[in-house]
Amino acid sequence: MCRNALSLSMLNQLHTALSADDGDLRVIILSHTGPVFSAGHDLKELTAKTGREYHEKVFSTCSSVMNLIQDLPVPVIAQVQGLATAAGCQLVATCDIAVASEQSRFATPGVHVGLFCTTPGVAVGRAVPRKVALEMMFTGQPIGAQDALLHGLVSKVVPEDKVEEETLKVAAKICEFSKEVTALGKASFYAQMALEKKAAYRFAEKVMVDNLSLEDSQEGIGAFFEKRKPKWKS
Amino acid sequence: MCRNALSLSMLNQLHTALSADDGDLRVIILSHTGPVFSAGHDLKELTAKTGREYHEKVFSTCSSVMNLIQDLPVPVIAQVQGLATAAGCQLVATCDIAVASEQSRFATPGVHVGLFCTTPGVAVGRAVPRKVALEMMFTGQPIGAQDALLHGLVSKVVPEDKVEEETLKVAAKICEFSKEVTALGKASFYAQMALEKKAAYRFAEKVMVDNLSLEDSQEGIGAFFEKRKPKWKS
Amino acid sequence: MCRNALSLSMLNQLHTALSADDGDLRVIILSHTGPVFSAGHDLKELTAKTGREYHEKVFSTCSSVMNLIQDLPVPVIAQVQGLATAAGCQLVATCDIAVASEQSRFATPGVHVGLFCTTPGVAVGRAVPRKVALEMMFTGQPIGAQDALLHGLVSKVVPEDKVEEETLKVAAKICEFSKEVTALGKASFYAQMALEKKAAYRFAEKVMVDNLSLEDSQEGIGAFFEKRKPKWKS
Repeated sequence: MCRNALSLSMLNQLHTALSADDGDLRVIILSHTGPVFSAGHDLKELTAKTGREYHEKVFSTCSSVMNLIQDLPVPVIAQVQGLATAAGCQLVATCDIAVASEQSRFATPGVHVGLFCTTPGVAVGRAVPRKVALEMMFTGQPIGAQDALLHGLVSKVVPEDKVEEETLKVAAKICEFSKEVTALGKASFYAQMALEKKAAYRFAEKVMVDNLSLEDSQEGIGAFFEKRKPKWKS
Repeated sequence: MCRNALSLSMLNQLHTALSADDGDLRVIILSHTGPVFSAGHDLKELTAKTGREYHEKVFSTCSSVMNLIQDLPVPVIAQVQGLATAAGCQLVATCDIAVASEQSRFATPGVHVGLFCTTPGVAVGRAVPRKVALEMMFTGQPIGAQDALLHGLVSKVVPEDKVEEETLKVAAKICEFSKEVTALGKASFYAQMALEKKAAYRFAEKVMVDNLSLEDSQEGIGAFFEKRKPKWKS
Repeated sequence: MCRNALSLSMLNQLHTALSADDGDLRVIILSHTGPVFSAGHDLKELTAKTGREYHEKVFSTCSSVMNLIQDLPVPVIAQVQGLATAAGCQLVATCDIAVASEQSRFATPGVHVGLFCTTPGVAVGRAVPRKVALEMMFTGQPIGAQDALLHGLVSKVVPEDKVEEETLKVAAKICEFSKEVTALGKASFYAQMALEKKAAYRFAEKVMVDNLSLEDSQEGIGAFFEKRKPKWKS
């Protein structure tokens, strides 16, 4: 596969792979080989020849992959060591966490081919300040890793030779904690962020009380007082 | 009180203290002695022994303190010179302004005890980029003062020995202006931010016209033209 | 005109100038001569003498200029080489892109004259973190260019003698692409940002499919495969 293009077939594979959980899954890392994290949609699939119905299928499948990532019970980390463009940049913006190398770059260059990055803009516009998103989309020019960090597109930037190590460190940290609690926390975070602040608090209060009734929570608090490591059920 | 835990009793005291205004109140500073701004809820109050009803009371009281801070007519400044964790971090995120020392740190470490920082996430998720909030909540790891500034969790970072001076400078600046105008401005800011942009403008236009009809506003504009210091009524 | 005050007459002129499109318009640059980008409303128009109805007219005209900027089919760039205050700062926050010199400064100082910057806060509060917006509005103190960049108020900061060059570079980049595609993209970006994420995706998917049916889009994709420069219709 060339430059990790998000062809319809690739999007379907991603959807299947992301949905697979044998029960032991704790965290997902999206990494890449080669210089490109993902170059976005496969333009060969977006010509007049493939037709409107096919185009609809491509974009609805893409959105369903993006929505799935945030709906999954486990954290999803993007490990970026190169170029992420268009729907590839959307994928980075969508992940829960993103660790990037200092050389990585991010672009929404659809204007170059007359296809404005409108769907990538849904994720990128919710990750970085509006002006940054618009400049990226209007000019098609890439931004570097430090600007991506400055503006919130990625959560961490490290030297190229530390990206894997740092990503695995974040993943290992996540695996130290209760799977059930992390799943409850992730779902509740996205749910409350969609609400107005006072409604968000009412919702979140209920989640906290429910969280406390979980076995893992009482185990965690008990272990804290007994100064021992907790033994999670999940 | 150990590490400024937000016990139910402490939350009730905070609520009472924040609500007290003898008429001369102009600005509130939340500062701390010792190395911890606040370590969040008191875990002893969150065990199975205290029970669900008590837990509900703790979280609803906590939310009511957080909502109160933004509903108050005077600006509330957090002065942070150490560690702010869990609901303590939520408290910093909630204040109108936060001045922090270079050594201060911020964490939402609930996963360590199996209690995801969902209610802190309401405030933190509205203050920093989503990816930063999620990495903090999934890993429980603290971020430093510079990252807190970079991501919008605090508004100013200064050396340890300048925190009080800087906080008092901000507070003194606020006290130079009309209390009535500041109160109108604070309430209107939070109100319009909850609206869609065009509705926000319609609301804000009306506030501006009402503001102009205040005595302090005509005094301020008059003083500007007469090149003298205004004498505020409030 | 003194310090580019946004008098009612100036706002009406701006509205007319921004609306004028002879068909060849591709991008708008708001620049200034002198040390002030804009000092905001003309205080002489906001005294008791001019009266409530006049004040209403000033603020509704100002909002209509701000809304127009984002509703226009072409990108609007602020080129800032000095001080932008109050409604002048609102204007910078409203533009799609802002290029600023290292010496430029930004303030919402209405409290000095007893008129809280509530309408500027609609734009500034949607551009920078809440704490930064509130500190600016409560204290009336200016922030520098680097802080404006850090917090998302401007999209680029360059040395004073490069501001015009950099702004023209961004504008020239925009002009390389299809006018029709850029117009569709700008309108769709603002529309989807006002929706909840999943609704935003459904809307944006449809836009992408429609975008693909444009002549310029198929020309762009065709040119990409034929490794030639596209010839845009618009």
